[in-house]
Amino acid sequence: MTALNDEPLRIGARTFTSRLLVGTGKYKDLDQTARAIDMSGAQIVTVAVRRVNIGQDPSQPNLLDVLPADRYTILPNTAGCHTAEEAVRTCRLARELLDGHNLVKLEVLADHKTLYPDVTETLVAAKTLIADGFEVMVYTSDDPILAQRFEAMGCVAVMPLAAPIGSGLGIRNPYNLHLILEQATVPILVDAGVGTASDAAIAMELGCDGVLMNTAIAGATDPVLMASAMRKAIEAGREAFLAGRIPRKLYASASSPLDGLFFG
Amino acid sequence: MTALNDEPLRIGARTFTSRLLVGTGKYKDLDQTARAIDMSGAQIVTVAVRRVNIGQDPSQPNLLDVLPADRYTILPNTAGCHTAEEAVRTCRLARELLDGHNLVKLEVLADHKTLYPDVTETLVAAKTLIADGFEVMVYTSDDPILAQRFEAMGCVAVMPLAAPIGSGLGIRNPYNLHLILEQATVPILVDAGVGTASDAAIAMELGCDGVLMNTAIAGATDPVLMASAMRKAIEAGREAFLAGRIPRKLYASASSPLDGLFFG
Amino acid sequence: MTALNDEPLRIGARTFTSRLLVGTGKYKDLDQTARAIDMSGAQIVTVAVRRVNIGQDPSQPNLLDVLPADRYTILPNTAGCHTAEEAVRTCRLARELLDGHNLVKLEVLADHKTLYPDVTETLVAAKTLIADGFEVMVYTSDDPILAQRFEAMGCVAVMPLAAPIGSGLGIRNPYNLHLILEQATVPILVDAGVGTASDAAIAMELGCDGVLMNTAIAGATDPVLMASAMRKAIEAGREAFLAGRIPRKLYASASSPLDGLFFG
Amino acid sequence: MTALNDEPLRIGARTFTSRLLVGTGKYKDLDQTARAIDMSGAQIVTVAVRRVNIGQDPSQPNLLDVLPADRYTILPNTAGCHTAEEAVRTCRLARELLDGHNLVKLEVLADHKTLYPDVTETLVAAKTLIADGFEVMVYTSDDPILAQRFEAMGCVAVMPLAAPIGSGLGIRNPYNLHLILEQATVPILVDAGVGTASDAAIAMELGCDGVLMNTAIAGATDPVLMASAMRKAIEAGREAFLAGRIPRKLYASASSPLDGLFFG
Repeated sequence: MTALNDEPLRIGARTFTSRLLVGTGKYKDLDQTARAIDMSGAQIVTVAVRRVNIGQDPSQPNLLDVLPADRYTILPNTAGCHTAEEAVRTCRLARELLDGHNLVKLEVLADHKTLYPDVTETLVAAKTLIADGFEVMVYTSDDPILAQRFEAMGCVAVMPLAAPIGSGLGIRNPYNLHLILEQATVPILVDAGVGTASDAAIAMELGCDGVLMNTAIAGATDPVLMASAMRKAIEAGREAFLAGRIPRKLYASASSPLDGLFFG
Repeated sequence: MTALNDEPLRIGARTFTSRLLVGTGKYKDLDQTARAIDMSGAQIVTVAVRRVNIGQDPSQPNLLDVLPADRYTILPNTAGCHTAEEAVRTCRLARELLDGHNLVKLEVLADHKTLYPDVTETLVAAKTLIADGFEVMVYTSDDPILAQRFEAMGCVAVMPLAAPIGSGLGIRNPYNLHLILEQATVPILVDAGVGTASDAAIAMELGCDGVLMNTAIAGATDPVLMASAMRKAIEAGREAFLAGRIPRKLYASASSPLDGLFFG
Repeated sequence: MTALNDEPLRIGARTFTSRLLVGTGKYKDLDQTARAIDMSGAQIVTVAVRRVNIGQDPSQPNLLDVLPADRYTILPNTAGCHTAEEAVRTCRLARELLDGHNLVKLEVLADHKTLYPDVTETLVAAKTLIADGFEVMVYTSDDPILAQRFEAMGCVAVMPLAAPIGSGLGIRNPYNLHLILEQATVPILVDAGVGTASDAAIAMELGCDGVLMNTAIAGATDPVLMASAMRKAIEAGREAFLAGRIPRKLYASASSPLDGLFFG
Repeated sequence: MTALNDEPLRIGARTFTSRLLVGTGKYKDLDQTARAIDMSGAQIVTVAVRRVNIGQDPSQPNLLDVLPADRYTILPNTAGCHTAEEAVRTCRLARELLDGHNLVKLEVLADHKTLYPDVTETLVAAKTLIADGFEVMVYTSDDPILAQRFEAMGCVAVMPLAAPIGSGLGIRNPYNLHLILEQATVPILVDAGVGTASDAAIAMELGCDGVLMNTAIAGATDPVLMASAMRKAIEAGREAFLAGRIPRKLYASASSPLDGLFFG
C-alpha cells in the first residue's frame, strides 16, 4: 500500500515509494524494532552510528541483521556529534562499515537539552562532506534562509525540524515550512517533533516530501500499532495534498475563503 | 483494511468495522458518487431524503441502485428541515421508503447561511422520533450539556459539529469535544466541518468514535483520491488513539509534560 | 483613561465608558475586592445574589458599602441557579433589595462541574424576566443561533462564553464569536473563560463590545495588578479594533492577505 | 503611565520605563511619525540609517528634528544591509553622525522577499562591532541556540523575530521564545511580526522584556490610535506577566492544569 496516484520520492539517484522514514532508537529490543519498522512500511531507516552497532563491534548483535539490506536503505546519522569534525569523522566511519555507502543524514547538535541543531557547525560539516563525495541529507532548523543555503551547497534533501527532537509538539511553525517549500527543488522532509498521526498528516498536507520520526513510534505505548498509524497518516496526508482540499470558509455559502483578517 | 486491534463501532444493535461515515451530496454524478464512496470504505452512507431520490420518484435514477443494501447501511437524514415537524415527517417517509428501516440521522437546521442546528427544535424532534421507535443519531452543536441531554433521551449516537457544514475549518473547539467524550456512553461522531485528512485524524485522536463527512470528499479536486485519504486518516487517528501517543514536552529531556501554563 | 476615539458602550438606556465588567467573587476580603475593582476601572460590577450579602442579612457586612452606588452600576446575577424558576425568583429578590433596579445578568447553569449554561432553561427564564420588565443580559454558549434568539426575544446584551467559567482557556472558538458579532445589533460581551490580558484584548479585537471576568482577576497572584492589566488590555484591544490592523501576510511584500488555504 | 510594580528595562548601562520600541518607516509624513511615536510612549526609536536622513544630507529635513534627543534614545539600525561588511560600515557612519553614540540595532537581511535575517553574516558583523566598541542589539531568527550565542558574544540585547517583518502574523512559535527566555540573561525583545495589540501582549506575557515594531503601527488605518493601543498592550502584557495569571484548566474545578496530552 502506498499513496495513490503518486510519484516516487527521489533522493539523489534513489527512488522510494514510502515517504515515512524511521529511526531505530528507544525500542525495547531488536525484535520490537524490527516489527515496528516492518509495520511502518519505511524503506529508509536511519541509524545513529555512534550509538548502534552496525559492525563496529563484531562480537555484539548487529542491527543490520534485523534490517535486511535488500529491503531497507540504511541511512547512517551523526546523532551525538556536537562539532563538524565529529560529524565528518562519523560519516566516514559509516561509509567504511557500509562498503562505500555515501548517503548520510547529517546532524550536529548544539546542546544536550533541546537537541537543537548547531547550524553554523552543520554548514561547515555539510560543505566538507559534499566535497568528499557524500550525499547529504541535512537536519536543520526551520529557518527558510538556511534551508535554501543547504540546498544551494548541494545537499540532496533538507530536513527542517517540526519541533525539538522527542518533544512530540508537532509542527510549531507551518509558516516557516511553507516558506521553505515554496522555494525548494530538493525534497523537504520534516525531521523531529512529530507526536502523533495527525502531526505527520499535516506535514504532508503542507506539501512536505516525507517525514522522519523515531520517538513518536518507539515511545508510544504500543509502538507497532503506532507505526501502522504513522504509515497510514503519511499516506493520508500525501493523498489529501494531491487530491486538492476544499477551501476554508466561515460557512459553506461564504463567497470567499477566509482571509486571515480575523483569525490566528 | 481497518484499524488494527480495534473493536467494532456499535450503533444501537448494529456493528461496523469502518468509522468513516459519508454523505452523498455534491458529487458530479452517480458514478463519481459510487466510486468515491467505494474508495472511502464507508459502511454507513447518509442520504438527504428531501433532496435525493431513494424511491420517491420511481421514474428517476435511484441512488440506492449504486449503493447496494447488502454492502451499505443507508442512513436517511433530514437535511433541509427547519422545524421539528418537518424532520419527523421526513423520517417517517424514509421509514416507509426503506421498508421499516428505523435508523435515522436527525438534523434540524436553523438558517440557510451557517447551517447551524436549531437545538431547541432538534430536542423536540428527537423526543418524538424516539417515542415513535426510531433509532436517532443526532446532529447538534458542540455544547456538552446538550450532548448529554440527547444521550439521556435515548439517542443512539450524538454527532457534534466540528465547524459549520461545508466550512472545511476542522475541529474548532477540541475542549468541548473532550468534555463531550469524557461523559459519553453512546458513540460520539464528529459531523460537519472536516476539511482535510488531518482534521479527521485529530477527531479520532481525541477519542471520537467516528466521523461523518461529505463536502470534504465531494468538494475536493479529486474526490476519489480524497476518499482514500480520509479512509486512511480515520484509521491512522484511531490507531494513534489506541496506541497511546507520547506526551508533549518542551524538549525530550523535560521532566514533565507541558502544563499549559505558557502556551495556548 | 478610556479607549480613545470611542463611543460609549450602550446597554439598554445606560451608557458606560469602560468596557470591562467585573465580578466580586473569590477575593481574599472586601478590601482586596474594592481595591481590585477600583483599579480595573469597571463601571458595571456583577454580584451573585445567592452568595453575597447586598442587604439580605442586615447584620452582616454589605458588599454595597464598598461599591458606592454613585460610582458603580450593580449587576445582580443568578449564579447558583439551575432552573428557570430559581433564576426568576432570584432576579425578583434582587430588584426588591435594590429598590426597583431592573438590569440583571441571567445565568442558569447546567451542572456543577463545567458550569456550562443550560440553554433551554435560560430561554424560559429570559422570556419570563423580559415579560416582567427586566432588562436581561444573558450568559449563554457561543452558539450563534441561540445568540440571535436571545436578541430577538429582547435581551439587552448577549454574553457568550469564551471558555468554561474559571478555566482561563481564553477564546476557544473565535469563529463562533465572529458569526455572533456579524449579525448582532445589541452588545455582545464575552463572559467567562478569560485567563490573561491578551485573551481580553483578542475579544475586543474581534469586535466584542466588552468583556466580563472574575476569576482571571481575583485568582491571580496579585489581583490588583491583574486588574490594571485587564483594564489596559480591554482598552488596547478596543483601540486596535478601531485603528484598523494591518492584514496578515506570509511576508510583507506578498500581494494578498493569507487566505487560510494552508494554515489553521 | 508605565507598568505598575515594575523594574526598568536595562539595556547595557541605559534604563527605560517604556518597553515598547518603535521604528520610523512607512508613515505618511514626519508629522504623523512624530504624533504616533509620541502616543506610543516609546523611549527608544530605531532609525534605518540607509533610508532616513539623520544628518547625512544637511539640505533635507532631518528626522531628529522631530525626535528630540533629550526625550528619545535613537537606535540606528542597519536595515537594507545584506552583508556583514555593509552593516559594520553603516553602524560606523551612524556613530559619526550621532557624535559617538554606540548603541546600534544590527540586522543583516538575507533576501528582499522574506526579510529573514542572514544569521551567519549577522554573527560575523556582531563580532566585529562588539570588538569595535559598539553595544549591539541583534535582530535574529527565533533559534534558541543562536540567541544564546549572540548573548555569549556580548550582545546587549537579543531580538528574535515573532514572524517575518511586516507580516502581521504575531508570535508564530512561542515555544522557541520560551526556550530563548529560559536561558537568557540579557533582555529579549521581540522584533518583527507583531500585527495587533494582542500579539504584543502575548510577547510580554511570555516574559519578553520588550517589543519593537514599526509596520503594525505605521501601517494601521489610524497609526496614532494604534500607537496608543500598542502602548497599553505592552503594559497590559507586562503587568499580567508580573501579576501571575491563573492556570489553564479544562474547567474551574479540575484538580490539575491542562497537561497538553489532548490539546495542541
